[in-house]
Amino acid sequence: MDAKAVVVGVGPENGLGAGLCRRFASEGRFVIVAGRTPEKIERVADSIVSSGGSAIPVVTDVTLEADVIRLFDIAMEADSDSAPADLIAYNAGNNQPLDFRTMEADIFESFWRLNCFGGFLIGREAARRFAPLGRGTVLFSGATGALRGVPKFAHFAASKAGLRMVAQCMAREFGPLGIHVAHVIIDGGIDGERVHTRFAEAVAAKGHDGLLNIDAISDAFWMLHSQHRSAWTHELDLRPFKESF
Amino acid sequence: MDAKAVVVGVGPENGLGAGLCRRFASEGRFVIVAGRTPEKIERVADSIVSSGGSAIPVVTDVTLEADVIRLFDIAMEADSDSAPADLIAYNAGNNQPLDFRTMEADIFESFWRLNCFGGFLIGREAARRFAPLGRGTVLFSGATGALRGVPKFAHFAASKAGLRMVAQCMAREFGPLGIHVAHVIIDGGIDGERVHTRFAEAVAAKGHDGLLNIDAISDAFWMLHSQHRSAWTHELDLRPFKESF
Amino acid sequence: MDAKAVVVGVGPENGLGAGLCRRFASEGRFVIVAGRTPEKIERVADSIVSSGGSAIPVVTDVTLEADVIRLFDIAMEADSDSAPADLIAYNAGNNQPLDFRTMEADIFESFWRLNCFGGFLIGREAARRFAPLGRGTVLFSGATGALRGVPKFAHFAASKAGLRMVAQCMAREFGPLGIHVAHVIIDGGIDGERVHTRFAEAVAAKGHDGLLNIDAISDAFWMLHSQHRSAWTHELDLRPFKESF
Amino acid sequence: MDAKAVVVGVGPENGLGAGLCRRFASEGRFVIVAGRTPEKIERVADSIVSSGGSAIPVVTDVTLEADVIRLFDIAMEADSDSAPADLIAYNAGNNQPLDFRTMEADIFESFWRLNCFGGFLIGREAARRFAPLGRGTVLFSGATGALRGVPKFAHFAASKAGLRMVAQCMAREFGPLGIHVAHVIIDGGIDGERVHTRFAEAVAAKGHDGLLNIDAISDAFWMLHSQHRSAWTHELDLRPFKESF
Repeated sequence: MDAKAVVVGVGPENGLGAGLCRRFASEGRFVIVAGRTPEKIERVADSIVSSGGSAIPVVTDVTLEADVIRLFDIAMEADSDSAPADLIAYNAGNNQPLDFRTMEADIFESFWRLNCFGGFLIGREAARRFAPLGRGTVLFSGATGALRGVPKFAHFAASKAGLRMVAQCMAREFGPLGIHVAHVIIDGGIDGERVHTRFAEAVAAKGHDGLLNIDAISDAFWMLHSQHRSAWTHELDLRPFKESF
Repeated sequence: MDAKAVVVGVGPENGLGAGLCRRFASEGRFVIVAGRTPEKIERVADSIVSSGGSAIPVVTDVTLEADVIRLFDIAMEADSDSAPADLIAYNAGNNQPLDFRTMEADIFESFWRLNCFGGFLIGREAARRFAPLGRGTVLFSGATGALRGVPKFAHFAASKAGLRMVAQCMAREFGPLGIHVAHVIIDGGIDGERVHTRFAEAVAAKGHDGLLNIDAISDAFWMLHSQHRSAWTHELDLRPFKESF
Repeated sequence: MDAKAVVVGVGPENGLGAGLCRRFASEGRFVIVAGRTPEKIERVADSIVSSGGSAIPVVTDVTLEADVIRLFDIAMEADSDSAPADLIAYNAGNNQPLDFRTMEADIFESFWRLNCFGGFLIGREAARRFAPLGRGTVLFSGATGALRGVPKFAHFAASKAGLRMVAQCMAREFGPLGIHVAHVIIDGGIDGERVHTRFAEAVAAKGHDGLLNIDAISDAFWMLHSQHRSAWTHELDLRPFKESF
Repeated sequence: MDAKAVVVGVGPENGLGAGLCRRFASEGRFVIVAGRTPEKIERVADSIVSSGGSAIPVVTDVTLEADVIRLFDIAMEADSDSAPADLIAYNAGNNQPLDFRTMEADIFESFWRLNCFGGFLIGREAARRFAPLGRGTVLFSGATGALRGVPKFAHFAASKAGLRMVAQCMAREFGPLGIHVAHVIIDGGIDGERVHTRFAEAVAAKGHDGLLNIDAISDAFWMLHSQHRSAWTHELDLRPFKESF
């Protein structure tokens, strides 16, 4: 009986969250599809079920402690057809260039809340639930901004650097307890709906394979979960071959 | 006529904030002593004045936007005896080891609010005021936790890493506009009241010069402000000679 | 018809080099087993052949330019049963704690020659051969010492940091030309002959899965070669779950 | 009686090495001017002496162990007018963009020999001589290339990253013994002869204060030597205010 897998931050069907759900389902997992918008996560869960997989949507605002606790209550149940979750991917987040001097204080805060605080809530709850079992994988979608702050991205870099530290502290504390915590630095545009809608010209300029393919990213997430515990990866970067860095 | 200098996060007389105030005053600056506790900042300002320097206390909660704006309104005034500020040091912050799994969500948030969000508010306001003048120095007290997250310090590392990114984004954007932004990584215990009160045994174990001398840290802050603009430092570490790292 | 794969720095049968050879062979590759000691590489090649795979030993001193060129001459041949190589792993290297003050100059140099210069020769030759074809993977075995220098390891850290920079410069230049260059930070003891012979006590202290399993490391190398070019990894760490870092 | 100070890698009078010599002399030090070209170091020493300072030239090839030992034999003498050296700056080095694929192996090696191996020889000798005395400062001129490898600079980045690790290992081992080891990341063009001769157009494009002023860099070196041992800096960057990074 396979364990459940949870993906947090699922939005449109062609986004990374949905891709992770499909990938985990294709490996036989019962997938908890967590996101803010009921219609979106229902569509993702439905499409998995209609392809023969198992999935349920769970409406979750990751910035609300109660929602996160409830999500884990569901994820850690032992059903007749799936065992308690041993894999969770934190893929919630937001990004957008903003002028530093005119940025409103509550905008700066809102980026932190989604990009960092939600990751803390999920990470802490995962640690609480997984540590007594001595197993589990916690994967965070990170960004280059976590390592390097550039103009127009102070709100983004500050929040993603915070998330990275949450992941790093967790890895050092909970690795020896059997929990695999990894931080995936996604460096480039993701080939999903958002980028095509918002940045059509930039996408064209990138050329073939110039955006990160969602299945390729999902391969990396699954690979991390599958690693032998004698050779775990804590951090890796993913980047289109032609992306300058 | 000397420009004003602002120190944010001033507490007890033998803390780093007070030390920075004294140092800036000894260089002839009119010092704005900003902190949350009226009695503490009054004592620091009084002691500067009674030594022949110039200083006023300004009660400031750096996590409140209105307080930060008001602080700069005062700092940027051109008085009969001092020019608008061209130097601000952000020294507010908190640190304490905390267990990850039992940490309350609002504790995690409160560390971010003081260690990172306050730094954003101060940094943004400094950028707004200094950029039109094409000059000014903004110094942030940072920590090794900003670079490396270890067990019991996720709340601290996440917030300090965020502050570091605010500083880095500012440096890249505002350096070319004439604003010097620097991040000082203080790696070790500071030889002030707090450490002696709370960690007397650890202090004894460190031995002579095993804690960072406050005047020595203040030297580094003043040196950063004094650097020629053709050779500015953005980041440096400060560490007792016997501190392991 | 599969392409050849080259492993440089192959020694004992239970070392990492031999493990990489076996793994590449198991994926159907004709493996070029390169190392300094004829008996050792012959044994590795023989064992692959006797298991139904394809492999030949090529005696190579990676610190000699002529040897490296000759190795690639062989690797890039199109035989009746295998295409020119599109995968090379640089696994040559040495490590040993040494006192800084009493270290002989030629010892410092010899570590550089094997850990860094050989990597340059291999990397440069790979770039020369792969770039015109617009494809190929170059993998370097790296170490934490490349990122952090600690007492007794100046010779090691200096040479491994150099190797890391060779890999990084190559990735930035040749990635857009279709060559995947990756640097694998192996952080911990490898579960091979050497560690058991030399450090038996330390091994026992590490406990079960406290050393990096060679098949697990080889999984990571093969995974890197298999990545879709829209989501390449340049750097990742591998570490036993209980290893402190 | 002041201690001697040594500057290694002194060339033209308007280069950084000469600037460091002048600065140390202006602080009252008897300066050992070390470099490869007799005429150049004689001119630097003469100009210091004619300005009322004390200096002697010592012809030194830092890549030759015997030269380095002889240099320290001279530097550690207690003369009637100066005490044994307690300060040494390693400023030897070379840089130049080179194509990776056509770079000769001996060119790659020669960059390592000057940028890294010479630093090891100087650092090791300094450790040998300073450690028994429990004091001394060792400063290394570093570069951004030590942290980040970009196309055309593999030879430079690999050697400078190696030098950085030598400095870091030394700091961790010898700091607690009273030796201050620091690595100065010079990020930008230095306003000396070489850059004006070779890159006149680029210099013009940088504009006023767009190159690092040599006196400003020298300030940083002297400041490092002057730091109180309770707050030593191991690494700092220096960069023109308008330099993009």
